[in-house]
Amino acid sequence: MKATIVTVGDEILIGQIIDTNSSFIAKSLDKIGIGVHEMLSITDDKQHILQTLSLLQNKVDVVIITGGLGPTKDDITKKTLCEYFNDKLIINEKVLVHVTQLIEDYFKRPITQVNKDQALVPSKCEVLFNQVGTAPGMWLQKENTVFISLPGVPYEMKYLIENEVIPKLIAKYDRPFIIHKTILTYGVGESLLAERIETWEDNLPKFIKLAYLPSPGRVRLRLSARGVDENVLKNEISLQVQKLQLIISDCIVGFEEDETLEVVLGKLLTEKKLTISTAESCTGGKIASTITSVSGSSNYFKGSIVSYATEAKVAVLGISQEKINKFSVVSTQVAEEMATQVQKKFKTNFAIATTGNAGPNKGDANAEVGTVFIAIATPKGVFSEKFNFGQPREKVIDRALNQALEMIYKEILKNYSK
Amino acid sequence: MKATIVTVGDEILIGQIIDTNSSFIAKSLDKIGIGVHEMLSITDDKQHILQTLSLLQNKVDVVIITGGLGPTKDDITKKTLCEYFNDKLIINEKVLVHVTQLIEDYFKRPITQVNKDQALVPSKCEVLFNQVGTAPGMWLQKENTVFISLPGVPYEMKYLIENEVIPKLIAKYDRPFIIHKTILTYGVGESLLAERIETWEDNLPKFIKLAYLPSPGRVRLRLSARGVDENVLKNEISLQVQKLQLIISDCIVGFEEDETLEVVLGKLLTEKKLTISTAESCTGGKIASTITSVSGSSNYFKGSIVSYATEAKVAVLGISQEKINKFSVVSTQVAEEMATQVQKKFKTNFAIATTGNAGPNKGDANAEVGTVFIAIATPKGVFSEKFNFGQPREKVIDRALNQALEMIYKEILKNYSK
Repeated sequence: MKATIVTVGDEILIGQIIDTNSSFIAKSLDKIGIGVHEMLSITDDKQHILQTLSLLQNKVDVVIITGGLGPTKDDITKKTLCEYFNDKLIINEKVLVHVTQLIEDYFKRPITQVNKDQALVPSKCEVLFNQVGTAPGMWLQKENTVFISLPGVPYEMKYLIENEVIPKLIAKYDRPFIIHKTILTYGVGESLLAERIETWEDNLPKFIKLAYLPSPGRVRLRLSARGVDENVLKNEISLQVQKLQLIISDCIVGFEEDETLEVVLGKLLTEKKLTISTAESCTGGKIASTITSVSGSSNYFKGSIVSYATEAKVAVLGISQEKINKFSVVSTQVAEEMATQVQKKFKTNFAIATTGNAGPNKGDANAEVGTVFIAIATPKGVFSEKFNFGQPREKVIDRALNQALEMIYKEILKNYSK
Repeated sequence: MKATIVTVGDEILIGQIIDTNSSFIAKSLDKIGIGVHEMLSITDDKQHILQTLSLLQNKVDVVIITGGLGPTKDDITKKTLCEYFNDKLIINEKVLVHVTQLIEDYFKRPITQVNKDQALVPSKCEVLFNQVGTAPGMWLQKENTVFISLPGVPYEMKYLIENEVIPKLIAKYDRPFIIHKTILTYGVGESLLAERIETWEDNLPKFIKLAYLPSPGRVRLRLSARGVDENVLKNEISLQVQKLQLIISDCIVGFEEDETLEVVLGKLLTEKKLTISTAESCTGGKIASTITSVSGSSNYFKGSIVSYATEAKVAVLGISQEKINKFSVVSTQVAEEMATQVQKKFKTNFAIATTGNAGPNKGDANAEVGTVFIAIATPKGVFSEKFNFGQPREKVIDRALNQALEMIYKEILKNYSK
């Protein structure tokens, strides 16, 4: 059971945008036991698309194509699919009604011919109804391969994958199971780790594959098992992890959750009926916006004060000017007072605060670029840590965000486990 | 002059990580006139790699491969390249000295056999010396195709692209020029825009290609010209942009390459010496974090109050409880008071406020999912608009963000032009 994911669009090939759709689709397929054999990004060119379709025909079971379904002249996927299937375009009435409604509601104007053409689909296709956009998805089969065409707009693609594509694939195919388990290790380099676990690795059963995923300071080890009996896979993975724990117990720090940290944190806060707030300087509201990207976050997130300017820290957040003068605005003392103040103002159980210099230039405090203090206020008190996240700016902000979420998550677990 | 970029690694194909390397490489090649024909992600499998190399042989001029050069058993790119080139691995002394030094400095321990093997390279390759990591890059040629193999760690790949690959490609090949110009438009949908500029689009010269890049609330138009005479390309692009300006002057907000609205807004605020702040409910800090993603934003952005909970709007932002009771928390009146209050608290010239319901469930106000009020406080007063951004949550937040930035940008232009 093999799939290939194809993205159509010059914007990816000239590096103007990063393709995140393929990763989402791959993860969704992997969960239902369909392995992705290849990902391909190709140009908005008819011949290129036709050649690609014909190369994949009968080579893989499923081809998922994103992009090129918009209403403009550079969107040629639909016409090209039609040509590949020797088909003609016909109006789908249900889609036409939906497109008309969407345009009238959103743009407050009547539908144009270009909009109407969005309801054209190849006569041989099964329409994948797109509730959240104007371009329908299409499902076509030629011999042993199913071709699925989806819009490239990420939330439309996601809607169709979750609500149309995955249910239809589950119904159509018998699939094996694919189980992954990712082990987080810390403090030992990739090569030394490989030497320590060599015997264990060499004795892994054939259906389990090991991958090393190194990043600065840590290595993730991913075990992937594939087979028809889910229980056999689960038991074997669990057995192998136990064996591994005996060998490198000193450097295993945990297992990777499939969910993002903000989702895991949200669940914990909801379960424990706790609330949080943030006071942000160098992160500029990114912690708040990441927390509130999760549905249901209004149950535990009360708000944030982004005190970007030094004078706002005094006037809005209520940090004492003397403290800033004495310790500088990028300091343990200011970070901790920010956390305590925002916790008080929003009346929350916990609070996060950040102050630092994301660069590229030195700010009010003259602190080295990359320096960030993160403080956590708890019901019992407040503590903070100093970091240097290097540069560029984007990396400093993202690492501060991840570090802050990790710190508060661990702190809550520590206080509220059992 | 065509290139293909290949990433090797199961972590991409199971959706565990997003491939950002290919985008960086594509942008770097595009700048020196080398068009990327395809991007491919393939598995850590010897046969798969060999088949891919042989398919690309003589089909494109340059193949850049990233990944699979680490020291562990799942890293097989080097061995496989060796097999493809009928070659053997030999120790490169310069690399060995460098690896030994790196390991001793960083891990404070002697080098192991696994580390030493990092200095093995195919005898036929030119080594691309990796100053920032242990795995060297490799440059190999077979008939008409150059194969370049680079480590997958992003900063190592970037170092080698900038310092080794690009200079060598420039020296080796005569390349055409590729010029892009991206025009930012706001407020008109893709299909209506396409109708308005249809005649202009149809009359573009053959060597200029137009692409529509839509995202919630805005459309970017990218013109790409390719040819041997850089001046001809530049002049023609500039002429076409002038023509376009006459047709859609009402919705063009910016012209320069790579500029987002937050960057354009930042330049305007800096130039006019103006300051802003935000009061955010449904956008949860995303407007603040987008504004502060720009270097130098501390010159004009003072801060934000994210009043997510209704009680925080009263206690922290100072909205009157009666007003909320009378008009509901999702209303023109509350949005406008939020903007006025935050403008006062942060002492800024302008302020943005948002209140709405991003979904998926109805909130405190019982407003329809997708409803958002955006208010702008100016030195002269305050105004607001009501929108329905539909669903899902992610789209509502992104559209509110774009709409808010567009509203404030236009308002400032209106008040401070000339």
